[in-house]
Amino acid sequence: MNEFIKKKGRKEIFDLKPYVPGKPIEEVKRELGIDDIIKLASNENPIGPSPKGVEAVEKALAQLHFYPDSNCFYLKNRLSEILGYENENLIIGNGSDEVLKLIAETFINQGDEVVFADPSFVEYEFTAKIMGAACIKVNLKDFTHDLEAMLQAITDKTKIVYICNPNNPTGTIVTEQEMDYFMNNVPEDVLVVFDEAYVEYVEAENFASGLKYVDQGKNALVLRTFSKIYGLAALRIGYAITTKEIAQAIERVIEPFNVNMLAQVAALAAIDDHEHVKKSQNLNSEGKQYLYKEFKNLGFDYVPTEANFIFVDTHKDIQFIFNKLLQLGVIIRTGDIFGYPTYMRLTIGTKQENERLINALKAILEE
Amino acid sequence: MNEFIKKKGRKEIFDLKPYVPGKPIEEVKRELGIDDIIKLASNENPIGPSPKGVEAVEKALAQLHFYPDSNCFYLKNRLSEILGYENENLIIGNGSDEVLKLIAETFINQGDEVVFADPSFVEYEFTAKIMGAACIKVNLKDFTHDLEAMLQAITDKTKIVYICNPNNPTGTIVTEQEMDYFMNNVPEDVLVVFDEAYVEYVEAENFASGLKYVDQGKNALVLRTFSKIYGLAALRIGYAITTKEIAQAIERVIEPFNVNMLAQVAALAAIDDHEHVKKSQNLNSEGKQYLYKEFKNLGFDYVPTEANFIFVDTHKDIQFIFNKLLQLGVIIRTGDIFGYPTYMRLTIGTKQENERLINALKAILEE
Repeated sequence: MNEFIKKKGRKEIFDLKPYVPGKPIEEVKRELGIDDIIKLASNENPIGPSPKGVEAVEKALAQLHFYPDSNCFYLKNRLSEILGYENENLIIGNGSDEVLKLIAETFINQGDEVVFADPSFVEYEFTAKIMGAACIKVNLKDFTHDLEAMLQAITDKTKIVYICNPNNPTGTIVTEQEMDYFMNNVPEDVLVVFDEAYVEYVEAENFASGLKYVDQGKNALVLRTFSKIYGLAALRIGYAITTKEIAQAIERVIEPFNVNMLAQVAALAAIDDHEHVKKSQNLNSEGKQYLYKEFKNLGFDYVPTEANFIFVDTHKDIQFIFNKLLQLGVIIRTGDIFGYPTYMRLTIGTKQENERLINALKAILEE
Repeated sequence: MNEFIKKKGRKEIFDLKPYVPGKPIEEVKRELGIDDIIKLASNENPIGPSPKGVEAVEKALAQLHFYPDSNCFYLKNRLSEILGYENENLIIGNGSDEVLKLIAETFINQGDEVVFADPSFVEYEFTAKIMGAACIKVNLKDFTHDLEAMLQAITDKTKIVYICNPNNPTGTIVTEQEMDYFMNNVPEDVLVVFDEAYVEYVEAENFASGLKYVDQGKNALVLRTFSKIYGLAALRIGYAITTKEIAQAIERVIEPFNVNMLAQVAALAAIDDHEHVKKSQNLNSEGKQYLYKEFKNLGFDYVPTEANFIFVDTHKDIQFIFNKLLQLGVIIRTGDIFGYPTYMRLTIGTKQENERLINALKAILEE
């Protein structure tokens, strides 16, 4: 860092840690010279994008020279219809990542506090710190949000509590009952952000969306994304459902044209692609059961998941496993970045991908 | 605004004015029920997107479920090659709009000042105000940046000076000589941002890019975009070239996956689509001469332009002209939002579009 940056840069940025993304396939190809690679590191949909989404993109290609609709009019209309809200309840972002940044820009001043679980999705910390928040991290209990402890962590300075449900990287949920208790006891003027990026994969019956608190008029916001089950991660599009007042406030800090046009048309088509969603859910469900069984055989412990990934204790140094798997063309996410040096977070893949992973793990363990 | 927002929202956001985008074609279709519409309001490329860019997008459609390369590796490589920099000098954003926000997040604290021309591109004010800057606006002189007055406006609190070159909405440039004088006199620790969104359209010989100051190691940053001559506005991609130190600082506040994958592949292909660029330049040059001549015939005054739009004084109430043109299916940008209530900013279109505009204007004036 040179003198200019030291003197003129915002102090808040100096201790921001850059996000470490799952290793891209292209990068592994470049670095290792292997061609046949599978990526189980970023919780992408293994069967690919919604075909209806792709078709919509193809039809829009002649229009690339026009700016996108800054207001995402058609997508908001359809989301409103499906979810039972009005357009004024919705914020659309360049991925729900951007919505997290917008939330921070709307609410967080230097010295404010935010509360979230540890480990959980890393973007809560990143976006809150940019705006100068102190991040209060509350350890998971049995790999699950400890909502009681999170309530205790709230102070007069707390602006936002983030609840990742299901939680990334552990795949656990907080139940409806636990959430009700939390919402009945959280101070009224704390914004509660429910990140439901993986909601479509939930099979547990005692799960409820945070939308019920938006409906009650509480200061709640629910984040959803098209990057997971809809298979549109490349396009960057996610959204928030919240009260009109909160949406209107966030609207103030949105860059015009923040959501590209192809993302808008793809999302609009994908959201009604029930066949693709159903297929993705079934595949995930089957893959989960297969992997549970195989992990047991391998002597691994795993956290039962409600998402499209599994948090697994290999009881080995995970960097060792990671590198061995990489040599065999399988990319996973290591748990050390979450503070679990023998764990991996593993996206549930196709049948073939899951089998290839298990065979690779067997080969490594037998070496 | 309800009590919660008043109490908990950042004060900075309360007086942000939302950006008013050029009216989208779809919106006019919805509102007026007209089908045959041309849009000369947003300085888009009238011949459409780079065909090479479109082709690259088509080839990438099967990969929409993967997250984009967070580092824009291939695009940075090619830009570095072409421009003669290294990847570490580059920042790629979700449009250069996002890069402006990133710059503000990197440098601006509450109470800092920024200096820019008035009128100029509105996003300097928007992004700086989000971070709490006081915006010092310096009137144009003869529709051109008044760099002498801008130097005078700099104080100890000034963090950033923005120079839009060519300037939006007037199409004027500052000459190399004027810029040299400015850069020799600007305090060393002020960041100078040269916004060169329209650089590819410049025909004047006394123009120079701000890149020369980056090369000299000054605290300068040059913004470029793929939204204009490359015809990729829908995809949202722009970039900055700056010193490694400044780039590294900005890098800290970038959201992972901020640039969607299709934008990356399209930009990578479009940047070498010299045929499309040449064709776009020629069309613009011819259209400019045609419109100059016709405006003279109509009794309009215009500012000679170095961009793909013209700032024109109709000597009439521009809202009246705007609405009349809209009825005839022609969307323009009114000058009142820039403080010029008889002016319009008009994108130079195809031959057919320009003729249609002129015929529509004639019809309106003859009424």
